Amino acid sequence: MRIREIHLTPVAFRDPPLLNAMGVHEPWALRTVVEVVTDEGLYGLGETYGDLSHLDRLRAAAPELIGLRPHALHEIHARVAASVGGDVVTDQHGLTGAGSNQKTVDAVFAAFEVACLDIQGKAAGVRVADLLGGPVREAVPYSAYLFYKWGAHPGGEPDRFGAALDPEGVVAQARLLIEEYGFGSIKLKGGVLPPDQEADAVVALRDAFPGLPLRIDPNAAWTPATSVRIGKALEGVLEYLEDPAPEIAGMAEVAARVPMPLATNMCVVTHDHLPPAIAQGAIGVLLIDHHYWGGLVRSSQVAALCDTFGLALSMHSNSHLGISLAAMTHLAAATPGLRHACDTHTPWQDGQDVVAPGALRFTEGAVPLPEGPGLGIELDRDALAAMHERYLACGLTRRDDTAYMKRFEPDFVPKRAHW
Amino acid sequence: MRIREIHLTPVAFRDPPLLNAMGVHEPWALRTVVEVVTDEGLYGLGETYGDLSHLDRLRAAAPELIGLRPHALHEIHARVAASVGGDVVTDQHGLTGAGSNQKTVDAVFAAFEVACLDIQGKAAGVRVADLLGGPVREAVPYSAYLFYKWGAHPGGEPDRFGAALDPEGVVAQARLLIEEYGFGSIKLKGGVLPPDQEADAVVALRDAFPGLPLRIDPNAAWTPATSVRIGKALEGVLEYLEDPAPEIAGMAEVAARVPMPLATNMCVVTHDHLPPAIAQGAIGVLLIDHHYWGGLVRSSQVAALCDTFGLALSMHSNSHLGISLAAMTHLAAATPGLRHACDTHTPWQDGQDVVAPGALRFTEGAVPLPEGPGLGIELDRDALAAMHERYLACGLTRRDDTAYMKRFEPDFVPKRAHW
Ligand SMILES: [Mg+2]
Ligand SMILES: [Mg+2]
Repeated sequence: MRIREIHLTPVAFRDPPLLNAMGVHEPWALRTVVEVVTDEGLYGLGETYGDLSHLDRLRAAAPELIGLRPHALHEIHARVAASVGGDVVTDQHGLTGAGSNQKTVDAVFAAFEVACLDIQGKAAGVRVADLLGGPVREAVPYSAYLFYKWGAHPGGEPDRFGAALDPEGVVAQARLLIEEYGFGSIKLKGGVLPPDQEADAVVALRDAFPGLPLRIDPNAAWTPATSVRIGKALEGVLEYLEDPAPEIAGMAEVAARVPMPLATNMCVVTHDHLPPAIAQGAIGVLLIDHHYWGGLVRSSQVAALCDTFGLALSMHSNSHLGISLAAMTHLAAATPGLRHACDTHTPWQDGQDVVAPGALRFTEGAVPLPEGPGLGIELDRDALAAMHERYLACGLTRRDDTAYMKRFEPDFVPKRAHW
Repeated sequence: MRIREIHLTPVAFRDPPLLNAMGVHEPWALRTVVEVVTDEGLYGLGETYGDLSHLDRLRAAAPELIGLRPHALHEIHARVAASVGGDVVTDQHGLTGAGSNQKTVDAVFAAFEVACLDIQGKAAGVRVADLLGGPVREAVPYSAYLFYKWGAHPGGEPDRFGAALDPEGVVAQARLLIEEYGFGSIKLKGGVLPPDQEADAVVALRDAFPGLPLRIDPNAAWTPATSVRIGKALEGVLEYLEDPAPEIAGMAEVAARVPMPLATNMCVVTHDHLPPAIAQGAIGVLLIDHHYWGGLVRSSQVAALCDTFGLALSMHSNSHLGISLAAMTHLAAATPGLRHACDTHTPWQDGQDVVAPGALRFTEGAVPLPEGPGLGIELDRDALAAMHERYLACGLTRRDDTAYMKRFEPDFVPKRAHW
């Protein structure tokens, strides 16, 4: 079985005005849908970032993979690495840490790897989770991912989620998501308001949902000193504190002085970061993300490394569609050490998808592992075509939360160790 | 597809009187052949230690796996762990480091895991290497594994390899193995004679085979001070120095003062050893061995961890048959970071095997990856039956090189930090 064709389709879908340390989500979120087709007629799906710089790397690498076997993952990685060369793609939104060549290669590879595993599973009649050692849980818990947000994009119609700019708004948003999805953990995206106001929101959540594990993620908007102060104030309230301050050294300084573990998807985002972060005791929880850790198998390997070094695991999410949700669910189902609820932006996608309905659903805050072979999902080609039309029409080619924010607040500055 | 039956067959095969720090190999080497059979009639093969304490653990675990899917490797590991409970099996020969519960569980699991991967590959029509990311090399280089040895077991017939008790004997043995197998690297098992005599043998090998990578493995028979002295004396001669002294702390002391990397299959033999060994800089090369690192997938994960931390990889071997050689070859073929020639005892098995002829061969010191699905080997059931008869007849139930040596040299003491 050989790879015969690869189709790369950039898509856009509506995204609410979610606030973060770098700015605000634009009205359209971009993704790229990857379809790998074999000479036996099987197809496998992957999903990755839609930024043009990344799409260009995908487009350059794809022809190099034609004729390879979908099982030849090491070879595919080597071809991708050769195609990427020395390039470094840095995300425009600044929320997943520094760019590096290793991370660029792994991010390009990941989209193809997931599609190849989908094919491997379909060909063998087993699930992708079975290719990763088999599921240890049949449903994967996700967290309610709360955002400070405006009630509408400026000049647009109000969305159904409403504004959330204070503790009451945040609690109301949590109620809505928990009511609709049944989430059993809560994460608040911070870095938007002064830290004490965000800590107040966390306490309000604790009071409104006693017993539910809580996290806050200011995306490195705080200084180490503020991080320590807020961390101490939230003792017994947070299950972990995510990326309060920038860089491994800053996180290590905070980790030594706060009572809860620190988590990251910013200071440890590629293999090179693991040795210094471990040596310095910078983190207690790694948020794995197969989109930039080189796919599902390499993420499993990083998870095994975390087990060896006593690091706990959770899972990071960017705005995504159902192909990524399926991949994340297979990975999480087959990762024994992943005991925190995973992050997902799924509620904000609000039903928009390229995956045909039926395979993915939430039950009590968890996604049951899709049953079919491979990822267990099928492409909705009409939806794909429509979302691709929207990509062409929307005019966006890269995510830039800061530039969008500055259109409305010209004095806005991204918050990095700001407070 | 479910596991329907598991057959465990202890076997014995003739072994020459190979000397090491703990004593001398007995006339019979013991192994256990594992056969996992599914309800679809596929069978998968594994091979592991033959010591009775280990065999008892295999026999206790096997019934717990009936009815599981061969893809459910995490579940199989959990069942094995539950079956082993808190037990610790320590090898009797003392050559693969300290026993621990983690290592005991992983060693029992490994034999079943390989058999399940064999089944997964057969069911999907792909090689085991394809289940590990695909081969990065189509043939796996092995080293000429030299031993000090007697010419015959006491009271027995001389074997065809002859005695090797000085540099000339060692060089003659190397010539024989290289002529027959084409090996392109040489490893000398040391810890037998005073260190300077063994260093002389290494220098004699360098002179006789200029350009071939050389290693010596005294199995921790030397003190750190001796290790440093010999290590410095062999600068430019050794590609790595394997387990000169005991324990992570001792190895770290040596590593800081010798010019070549240290390798180990003694001070780092389970996950718990990796963090302190890495923190202390104790080793530069890990000899992976899927038999006690929890099988092929977990060994891949450890290999990825080594890549992340800048550790090189080689592969450890105990006396083994063709099932293990096939498994080692698939793993090595699919492990990009494994750039040193692997160890194997195959020459000392001298044609004895439970694997049907044809699938495994050496070409220029390397074993071409077997082509068939799964491991690409078939069981020779007549050979298996004959070797099982020999197991029953030989009377050995555990390897004990020291006790055997003491029958001939009553004053013998195992050499641990001895010189
Ligand atoms: Mg984060
Ligand atoms: Mg050794």
